[in-house]
Amino acid sequence: MFLLEKHRSLPAYTPGDHEEGDGFIRLNTNESPYPPSPGVKAAIAGEAGKLGYYNDPDCTALREALAGLYGVKPAQVIATNGSDELLYFAFLAFADETHPIALPDITYGYYDLFAAAHGIPLVKVPLKADFTIDYRDYLGIGKTIVFPNPNAPTGYVMPAEQVAEIAKSNPENVIIVDEAYVDFGAETCLPLIEEYPNVLIVRTFSKSRSMAGARLGYGFACESLIAEIETIRNAINLYSVNRMTQAAGVAAVKENDYYMANCRRIIEAREYTTRMLHEQGFEVLDSKANFVFAKPKAMAAGVLAAQLRERGILVRHWEKDRIRDYLRITIGSMQEMQALECAIEMIFGRA
Amino acid sequence: MFLLEKHRSLPAYTPGDHEEGDGFIRLNTNESPYPPSPGVKAAIAGEAGKLGYYNDPDCTALREALAGLYGVKPAQVIATNGSDELLYFAFLAFADETHPIALPDITYGYYDLFAAAHGIPLVKVPLKADFTIDYRDYLGIGKTIVFPNPNAPTGYVMPAEQVAEIAKSNPENVIIVDEAYVDFGAETCLPLIEEYPNVLIVRTFSKSRSMAGARLGYGFACESLIAEIETIRNAINLYSVNRMTQAAGVAAVKENDYYMANCRRIIEAREYTTRMLHEQGFEVLDSKANFVFAKPKAMAAGVLAAQLRERGILVRHWEKDRIRDYLRITIGSMQEMQALECAIEMIFGRA
Repeated sequence: MFLLEKHRSLPAYTPGDHEEGDGFIRLNTNESPYPPSPGVKAAIAGEAGKLGYYNDPDCTALREALAGLYGVKPAQVIATNGSDELLYFAFLAFADETHPIALPDITYGYYDLFAAAHGIPLVKVPLKADFTIDYRDYLGIGKTIVFPNPNAPTGYVMPAEQVAEIAKSNPENVIIVDEAYVDFGAETCLPLIEEYPNVLIVRTFSKSRSMAGARLGYGFACESLIAEIETIRNAINLYSVNRMTQAAGVAAVKENDYYMANCRRIIEAREYTTRMLHEQGFEVLDSKANFVFAKPKAMAAGVLAAQLRERGILVRHWEKDRIRDYLRITIGSMQEMQALECAIEMIFGRA
Repeated sequence: MFLLEKHRSLPAYTPGDHEEGDGFIRLNTNESPYPPSPGVKAAIAGEAGKLGYYNDPDCTALREALAGLYGVKPAQVIATNGSDELLYFAFLAFADETHPIALPDITYGYYDLFAAAHGIPLVKVPLKADFTIDYRDYLGIGKTIVFPNPNAPTGYVMPAEQVAEIAKSNPENVIIVDEAYVDFGAETCLPLIEEYPNVLIVRTFSKSRSMAGARLGYGFACESLIAEIETIRNAINLYSVNRMTQAAGVAAVKENDYYMANCRRIIEAREYTTRMLHEQGFEVLDSKANFVFAKPKAMAAGVLAAQLRERGILVRHWEKDRIRDYLRITIGSMQEMQALECAIEMIFGRA
């Protein structure tokens, strides 16, 4: 046993099942049902012969493309190996054993792990009974704050105006707004970076841009905050975004319309699914993400998840306080959601 | 300023210049002059349509391929986003503020940065006057130990027998043997993992396998040591090796003969270059890597690097104690090394 004592009780991250090529409908990992755009495939092929050469550690072309699309300066953009890496760097930059992080009690699982790996104390702020976040809980809290917006797995969106109040009332602390799911109809907090030097927006290509398997995250903040995170990136893994992923990212930004059209289709499928689940007696939280968080009435959530799996449909269930009665169901294509509808009808015997 | 005080003096990693598509001969970053094998390009293209789905967090196919090639079990293999990430995880697993790391004073620059980012004290063991490592300096040192073997930028190889002595005399500590450059004629320490539970072998696809831009590192150790590092990987970035890179790695392992033939060509070019530099009056350290570390006689090393750059050839020079008189020259193709020869002859006016 060589692992340092303090790491021996580190919890494991439990990813959703990745059953591949075996006919499962995957509504458990919030992936996109749509393939990457044609330019992405071409861009990747174009890099294959150049792999012998190191990638650009500054991700220059990608940051310029993102800056152009979102109307900011390249120096306000950072790119990382998945948004997990950006979140990790931000945790290291702004928190440690004596600088805690405040976050919702029900939220994305990796925050807990980053903190556990570095002894960062967490101040867990309970969601309200209806699973919303009350922004007033964070006013003047005086700690680095992180939450997904929309939150996962609930889908709740905090209005940018309230995020601004949090930023204003915690001027000494960074507010990390994890916008992994923002492209499915939520309001972005991006404009806040111009006014608040303590707001970091975290994004990913995994959800709305069909590139979960390419690992590409990005973030926005004022130039000085980006530079501070770059200090950490520089010390830990400067080359982490490989050539193919950088090129794929640039191509995807150029073909943004393709992805935004897909987002609209997913929003439509979400509305359809929400109605369908209501009709089937589920309680469904209002979601602006590419998933819904829903509580079946007639059956325990874990049992329903197992029965759906038997019918070839994967959804996500956690055996955890407060949320064990719920399923997180990724919104796939309309056909996939109709397959879900069909399976639910068969399980519940056509109510 | 939100960055924690302790990080504000973090040094920056200074990568070699990456001049691209502008006709420079790049002998400054230890890249391979040969493109990836044909199967790599095909494998990458095959992943492009599947990017919407998450990559396999366990890198199963890749670890199995590596295990097969090197005659170990998949559970004795770990794969990471470049070998930098594996080194970083190992630092976190085995070292912290109260658990120092011992390493050579002249070595790979990222070790310093990982340590600085986490307050890990370093015990720097000076190389001998001839830039070799005396293994006796590490016997019973009682700390986690890391060194590249061959060392960078010197090219010195410690025999496996001596590494074994170090492992034996430090049974409570992990010996991290960074074999980034092992495929260019050095003896590997891989067999030691069967006998010593405290030996970790770190490898990369960046040098001998022409995939610097794909970011793929791997490591070997006994199953329990791999499991300990996996605990850290799990807590920090479980998905860090993207789909394309995993597929490229599997293809490269299948086409291993192609890469080993390239290594033989590089070894030939290294011998040629060593003779040529001797003839030009350089002092050249004996190297088993894809670079040589050489001291020009007639000119300051930094001046020569600048003059070579003017002639379109990039080599590496550090303005640092003990090594400022030397250049690290990557071994490229024979044509590239002849271009170097020609440039040196012109600079020195055909001695």
